[in-house]
Amino acid sequence: MTIPLHASTVRPEWVDYNGHLRDAYYLLIFSEATDALMDHIGLDACTRERTYTTIFTLECHLRFLREVKRSITVQVRTQLLGHDAKRLHIHQSLMVGESDEAAAVCEQMLMHVDGRGPKSAPFAPDVLACVQAIAAAHARLPKPINVGRVMRLPG
Amino acid sequence: MTIPLHASTVRPEWVDYNGHLRDAYYLLIFSEATDALMDHIGLDACTRERTYTTIFTLECHLRFLREVKRSITVQVRTQLLGHDAKRLHIHQSLMVGESDEAAAVCEQMLMHVDGRGPKSAPFAPDVLACVQAIAAAHARLPKPINVGRVMRLPG
Repeated sequence: MTIPLHASTVRPEWVDYNGHLRDAYYLLIFSEATDALMDHIGLDACTRERTYTTIFTLECHLRFLREVKRSITVQVRTQLLGHDAKRLHIHQSLMVGESDEAAAVCEQMLMHVDGRGPKSAPFAPDVLACVQAIAAAHARLPKPINVGRVMRLPG
Repeated sequence: MTIPLHASTVRPEWVDYNGHLRDAYYLLIFSEATDALMDHIGLDACTRERTYTTIFTLECHLRFLREVKRSITVQVRTQLLGHDAKRLHIHQSLMVGESDEAAAVCEQMLMHVDGRGPKSAPFAPDVLACVQAIAAAHARLPKPINVGRVMRLPG
């Protein structure tokens, strides 16, 4: 089981005074890709409403590697790095055109939540089965660069 | 020399289906606080246009600690952790109301850039003097929590 690509087009209002995608809007695109992942594992809007569950982002590490300009279409590849009964640790790559080098990468820790608290909650069995199938498929992928990165000045 | 607080109010369009500020919009608020920092060190819009310089975000580590709801006014505190001739390493805290505990924190690495490349470029002497004055003042502040954090599943 692989996670489908998420595609998005850079909107004019996402471009800053530098003429490229503003940092926060890279994260908006990654965040929408996370929504697509939720749909994919059975946590679509309908199920979330019915079961009072959702996903909260706990943490997010972004690296901006290349400028992305207005009106460009981008795609996000998502790789599952790890999981437990209620968390997903994922890595996302923002790809532009035919290039095989990411324009940005995002490492995220996500928590499954019972919205009635809100408090953390284990995945339902069918959702967990989906996550486990993805984990089995992704165990064969190489570990992406930039995972577990500590930020520091060079030298 | 201290960096002024940056204030913002959570707009309705920033709130997601969980009824709270979406992750990307925390970063938009932090990003606007970075703009305020640029103004403060003499890299205001006017100077950027005149000197063809700007700041690019290289990297950004966010932790989401508390929910932030619609229409709430938030403030960002910025602390300079380090710098070199062309980089700033900063830590930002998103504060809500009178609470002394951050609702989110953001560690950022910023690069001074000559937009004509674009390529990295040293700060102009007057900007560097401003940065050094902030560094001297902030050297007395305690190091914030969550700096240099590696993301991993617990256990």
